[in-house]
Amino acid sequence: MALRTDWSDRACPIARSLDVLGDPWSLLILREVFLGNHRFDTIRDRLDVADTVLSRRLNAMVEDELLNRVAYAGAARPRYDYTLTDAGRDALPVLHALARWGTTHRPRTPRMKISCTTCGQESLSADWCSTCQAALTVDNTAWRTPARPKETVALSSS
Amino acid sequence: MALRTDWSDRACPIARSLDVLGDPWSLLILREVFLGNHRFDTIRDRLDVADTVLSRRLNAMVEDELLNRVAYAGAARPRYDYTLTDAGRDALPVLHALARWGTTHRPRTPRMKISCTTCGQESLSADWCSTCQAALTVDNTAWRTPARPKETVALSSS
Repeated sequence: MALRTDWSDRACPIARSLDVLGDPWSLLILREVFLGNHRFDTIRDRLDVADTVLSRRLNAMVEDELLNRVAYAGAARPRYDYTLTDAGRDALPVLHALARWGTTHRPRTPRMKISCTTCGQESLSADWCSTCQAALTVDNTAWRTPARPKETVALSSS
Repeated sequence: MALRTDWSDRACPIARSLDVLGDPWSLLILREVFLGNHRFDTIRDRLDVADTVLSRRLNAMVEDELLNRVAYAGAARPRYDYTLTDAGRDALPVLHALARWGTTHRPRTPRMKISCTTCGQESLSADWCSTCQAALTVDNTAWRTPARPKETVALSSS
């Protein structure tokens, strides 16, 4: 990702992460892909973002190996699905840590709820189920988001 | 924080967090304050950042209530210490989640180690001691950073 400063070779892993994950749009794009929104038009409409901005971010995220770009059939011209790579999946705790900070320090209702689908309980951690001790991954996490407060959405990587 | 897009009033707590924490420099400044570096000159030298950039970020972080600015005596002109507010302290899991992602997906040696000082064990979570189950906060967390690989530094908020 072309930040003003290149941190890809810094000794500190926080700085190396920020070289890839330090762009707010990229984290919101990851949020959408976790929620099962894999196509350009859907992501654009949900984020209310300009085509050029989204296109640039998606290209960078594919190059940084956060997302896979997969052509899908049935469209007049080539169209793509964006799915999570292992590195993209592993960014989930970053989103959760941000969600928990925002819920506490910039509160609004309805609030977002992060649940473990292994035991069904709300998690009090970014990456660990505080009830059943399972590591929270895309495979056992569900969100109740403020946009759809009556629905619990199981996350998906593809 | 003046991002290009104002996300302070978004329904999603991830977006509201990114409005404040979505700037990479701000997260690296928080890293330094957690490590006990509270003064402008020290933070500037460690981050290798321009005075104007650092000054603008520190002002925004005080305004966003991530940092307190406290004048200290003994200098010819007014000088300040920057200490963590409750909101700043609570950003620790965001830094830990980034550190863990970077350690896994952009690996380098020596690696950063996050430990719980309650039990002395390395943590496998961003916000929770996977050994003794304590919530990881500034008061019971230590880092062994790549910059000082032989030393374990207990975090501090002031």
